[in-house]
Amino acid sequence: MSVRFGLLGAGRIGKVHAKAIFANPAAQLVAVADAIGKAATDLAAQYGCAVRSAEDIVSGDDIDAVVICTPTDTHADLIEQLSRAGKAIFCEKPIDLNLGRVKQCLAVVDAEGATLMVGFNRRFDPHFMAVKQVIENGEIGAIEMVTIVSRDPGAPSVDYIKRSGGIFRDMTIHDFDMARFLLDEEIDTVTAQASVLVDPAIGEAGDFDSASVMLSTASGRHATISNSRRASYGYDQRIEVHGSKGAVSAENQRPVSIEVANGSGYTRPPLHDFFMTRYTEAYAHEISAFIDAVQSKAPAQPSGIDGLVALALADAALISVRDGRAVKVSEVTGPLADGSVF
Amino acid sequence: MSVRFGLLGAGRIGKVHAKAIFANPAAQLVAVADAIGKAATDLAAQYGCAVRSAEDIVSGDDIDAVVICTPTDTHADLIEQLSRAGKAIFCEKPIDLNLGRVKQCLAVVDAEGATLMVGFNRRFDPHFMAVKQVIENGEIGAIEMVTIVSRDPGAPSVDYIKRSGGIFRDMTIHDFDMARFLLDEEIDTVTAQASVLVDPAIGEAGDFDSASVMLSTASGRHATISNSRRASYGYDQRIEVHGSKGAVSAENQRPVSIEVANGSGYTRPPLHDFFMTRYTEAYAHEISAFIDAVQSKAPAQPSGIDGLVALALADAALISVRDGRAVKVSEVTGPLADGSVF
Amino acid sequence: MSVRFGLLGAGRIGKVHAKAIFANPAAQLVAVADAIGKAATDLAAQYGCAVRSAEDIVSGDDIDAVVICTPTDTHADLIEQLSRAGKAIFCEKPIDLNLGRVKQCLAVVDAEGATLMVGFNRRFDPHFMAVKQVIENGEIGAIEMVTIVSRDPGAPSVDYIKRSGGIFRDMTIHDFDMARFLLDEEIDTVTAQASVLVDPAIGEAGDFDSASVMLSTASGRHATISNSRRASYGYDQRIEVHGSKGAVSAENQRPVSIEVANGSGYTRPPLHDFFMTRYTEAYAHEISAFIDAVQSKAPAQPSGIDGLVALALADAALISVRDGRAVKVSEVTGPLADGSVF
Amino acid sequence: MSVRFGLLGAGRIGKVHAKAIFANPAAQLVAVADAIGKAATDLAAQYGCAVRSAEDIVSGDDIDAVVICTPTDTHADLIEQLSRAGKAIFCEKPIDLNLGRVKQCLAVVDAEGATLMVGFNRRFDPHFMAVKQVIENGEIGAIEMVTIVSRDPGAPSVDYIKRSGGIFRDMTIHDFDMARFLLDEEIDTVTAQASVLVDPAIGEAGDFDSASVMLSTASGRHATISNSRRASYGYDQRIEVHGSKGAVSAENQRPVSIEVANGSGYTRPPLHDFFMTRYTEAYAHEISAFIDAVQSKAPAQPSGIDGLVALALADAALISVRDGRAVKVSEVTGPLADGSVF
Repeated sequence: MSVRFGLLGAGRIGKVHAKAIFANPAAQLVAVADAIGKAATDLAAQYGCAVRSAEDIVSGDDIDAVVICTPTDTHADLIEQLSRAGKAIFCEKPIDLNLGRVKQCLAVVDAEGATLMVGFNRRFDPHFMAVKQVIENGEIGAIEMVTIVSRDPGAPSVDYIKRSGGIFRDMTIHDFDMARFLLDEEIDTVTAQASVLVDPAIGEAGDFDSASVMLSTASGRHATISNSRRASYGYDQRIEVHGSKGAVSAENQRPVSIEVANGSGYTRPPLHDFFMTRYTEAYAHEISAFIDAVQSKAPAQPSGIDGLVALALADAALISVRDGRAVKVSEVTGPLADGSVF
Repeated sequence: MSVRFGLLGAGRIGKVHAKAIFANPAAQLVAVADAIGKAATDLAAQYGCAVRSAEDIVSGDDIDAVVICTPTDTHADLIEQLSRAGKAIFCEKPIDLNLGRVKQCLAVVDAEGATLMVGFNRRFDPHFMAVKQVIENGEIGAIEMVTIVSRDPGAPSVDYIKRSGGIFRDMTIHDFDMARFLLDEEIDTVTAQASVLVDPAIGEAGDFDSASVMLSTASGRHATISNSRRASYGYDQRIEVHGSKGAVSAENQRPVSIEVANGSGYTRPPLHDFFMTRYTEAYAHEISAFIDAVQSKAPAQPSGIDGLVALALADAALISVRDGRAVKVSEVTGPLADGSVF
Repeated sequence: MSVRFGLLGAGRIGKVHAKAIFANPAAQLVAVADAIGKAATDLAAQYGCAVRSAEDIVSGDDIDAVVICTPTDTHADLIEQLSRAGKAIFCEKPIDLNLGRVKQCLAVVDAEGATLMVGFNRRFDPHFMAVKQVIENGEIGAIEMVTIVSRDPGAPSVDYIKRSGGIFRDMTIHDFDMARFLLDEEIDTVTAQASVLVDPAIGEAGDFDSASVMLSTASGRHATISNSRRASYGYDQRIEVHGSKGAVSAENQRPVSIEVANGSGYTRPPLHDFFMTRYTEAYAHEISAFIDAVQSKAPAQPSGIDGLVALALADAALISVRDGRAVKVSEVTGPLADGSVF
Repeated sequence: MSVRFGLLGAGRIGKVHAKAIFANPAAQLVAVADAIGKAATDLAAQYGCAVRSAEDIVSGDDIDAVVICTPTDTHADLIEQLSRAGKAIFCEKPIDLNLGRVKQCLAVVDAEGATLMVGFNRRFDPHFMAVKQVIENGEIGAIEMVTIVSRDPGAPSVDYIKRSGGIFRDMTIHDFDMARFLLDEEIDTVTAQASVLVDPAIGEAGDFDSASVMLSTASGRHATISNSRRASYGYDQRIEVHGSKGAVSAENQRPVSIEVANGSGYTRPPLHDFFMTRYTEAYAHEISAFIDAVQSKAPAQPSGIDGLVALALADAALISVRDGRAVKVSEVTGPLADGSVF
């Protein structure tokens, strides 16, 4: 049966999910809510769905699943309400910027037995999925070193920076999740260094724009992450996994694969200049995976715990930068409600 | 206003167009017809449209435009009927395998002032479009030499071969159109050689499976085409244009861009193994361009004349192989109704 | 024992061979001759060898092998003299521009049992050698289609053009040899088209600057060659072989393998801009192979017959352009002295 | 005037330098010494030089410059002796495994005003030199992040490991030097993590086989280094520099640039499997640069100080791994004799 969707938030990421839901034959977009009336009505007109209040979507009998694309500080409350209302929940990352609040929220999800999926869209990129498949096929043997380069085309506004929770919680968090996804073993230690090279205003806002991170697991696996808020050549997103028998990598993506040759050399176009065009397919696959989880009542992946752990890694990175030392992830997380560390 | 579509033919290419129409907010799929009832009802169920007879679609008041995906020998008749019924027409190539019949048909289209677009989908591939744009920007100067390599993953059935009109009319025809598209000057002379290297049964059916073609224009521009019915590494589709100031090329496409490295070397996956996955975006852009033409009442490109000329080049290639000589295209086409050669 | 070399001609290609001989521990450069005294003395000073007359080199008792780098119209005479003097001979291509003269010359070589190697240096390029090895390993199955793109960075002077024998005998001749090397079957038919797109002065000199060639073998294998006298992006030299089980290609070479990325895209440097830097390793391997042949008294490859056949293919291409038809190679060659066609 | 060379050590790296000296018209190889008599006589026979004792080479009147390729623990003594004997000195890295001993040695070099060049050959790789040139041209703007991936084809013997000073002093030392070369600013802080993933015997010998390093400069520039002692796909040597206006990278090198395509995909050969074939050109350029320095009496680069600093970075990395913290380089070096930190 088709999954009936409500959408909370009709901003740019809300539109991405609306389009993916609309194009998916197993889904139906029933209603949208947004604090800005025009945003909601425009989106509703485009996809032929209703405009409702967030409350009505939470309580609506004709809605099976809700996609949360509202500002971060509303996520945890909405997840709790939706859990209690028996809806399946897809929430854009992060659940909250505060680790304690995330734990509380996940306790509610757990108590209600709700389906919760967190929007680490990159796990659904077909190229990264293919990398994961190569690993799972055993083609590169035991995993040893993961290398992630992740650079944005340009820094966001300082206003955004101030609300973002900082580079580790806002940007690197995707790379932390990708490292966990690829390492196939929990991360034990985080070491990070960060600086302001792109824009002094980012530094004045208390954040960094350039960061390097080293991760290690208990068995000694490594991951390194290299982040910059500005890459003149586009949205730079590379992953590489080195193992005992070989290595696998995913190349950067560009809108078109052409090459112009002349006296200056051979030039291919810049990379995608926007995460939405870079990850178009990933967003569609992500929603499709969520629909599968809702229909099959299987646990959704990436889970709330995945969201929590990535945030914990970000917190550990911040401590590492502040203290100039390797930080055990367990320092940050403490034990969870179920007694496990994660 | 949304363009209301009828679809004739619910086979594999019909399904491709149905999907593109369905996903296009400027279009509406009203009805489908197919000689095989189940094909039509399956497609109708998937996209929520009606099943009708072809006749009803041709005459239907609620239909603005029709996509022809039926067997080749029905194309010319349907185009004539639809022209007279005032429908806009999108027809899969070729219009007919017989050049004389194509001319007759286009005379009717012309007399009725009908909108006709012929399905040379490759012109709408984003990579090839980008190549064309580089040329039009003047980035490579005057065009001199076009190089096209076009190889299928595997040969079709001998049954298909027998009905196909032969490799030049069935397969190379796309490359002839691409050469015209890129050369920006009409082709004057065709020289071809062809042989049977892949499957003797293709030779027994009177066809070839391996072909090389040289084209020249009046001003001395060159194009070369290399065709094979079988490439173990996938659907090989490359174009390259060399000009006075530089060159531009479009690389092959593969489903995912990863690379696995081990003691045997660095391996990227094979290419797409099917023209439909290779040209997914091209099909969507093609329908979108047709919708634009219908809505704006502008002439559709590629036109019926484009279809006719590509067929003429195929006929010239066949004569060239038979006679071992360069064949003037004008030998084949003769003057058209309007006095022009094309 | 070290092979003692005489060098006839101290021009640019003479210098290349002098350097390769000097660096080869199995060889010794004894003497050089050049019509221009200073050219000879400069080269002799650099490599510590004697300056002699050509006659003294031909007759010198302390010389085992001679490298001919003099103007083309002296090659055949020198080969005959050196054959009679019992020297091993390495001659730059072509032996002569006239096929009949080449046959006469090879008859002398044959009668004297002389070792003669013709300078098709590309066979010794490590990348092209690796392509050949892949073919011989059976990795791509039966050979079906060879594709050669070969473009010079810039056209030579019109003076050079006038003495060159024309594009087919001067430039394409290397590609004809490469096609034979890769096809592993003699070429049966040549079809060519040619035009003047780069420089009208080349046309006024009776030559072409842009050419396309199709070759076929008796069993139906294809080769295509695309030539231009001017490529703004450097010395473009690509080969590709498509077979029943796969394909193998050699990429273009550039002086350094770096890539610069910025807002305009990702740029790799232009290709080599000169055949001598492109084929540096090939020249060294070529001389080494000649030394091996001299020392082992094995037949040298490429042989005089290889030189003759490549020239015959050039002649056939010229006839094809003139007559607009496929030309049988046997039309051009006629039977050889030994009764064979080649 | 030609530089007259003595060579100390006729092992594998000694042979590399002997070949480069022999082929260089500005140099002359006069004598070689090796503790293993046959090694010296074989090399002498190949290149036509004398065999002498190390002492005779140090004191030889007919020797201008000496290349030190003996075991590491002899380097510092030899440098001191050669400095006092007025010879120009090229020494393979490292000068010594002990930082204090290196300082003593450099004080002697300084006092004697000797020319000393340390063998960080990678600075002379044409690809890496081209990267440096792009930076110096200002093409990528201000340097921000350097990424180095450096992996050996296979781990050396445990015997070698035990004498090597450990992965940081033996292997990463090249990457430390490359980072300094590219960052264009002294490194301020070193953070490292290391583990044993390749071979437990390496761990038992007290060393690591897998390491990640983060470096930072006072202005906040980053470098990351990823090392493994074993890469099944060959000698993996990549550098990449990200700057304010763009990025530049050097690709991996392989013996031949071909690609084989079949049903399994598109495969390029593995990388070089040995540092000597990978860096053939670098070694020749390195000796050439040394000769230039000797002839022009200019300071040689990389200098003794470059050798010292790279060693200090290795020591800092070791402390970082041991203590789990960022280590200031100044903790390790202390002030030098001349009062500067470096």
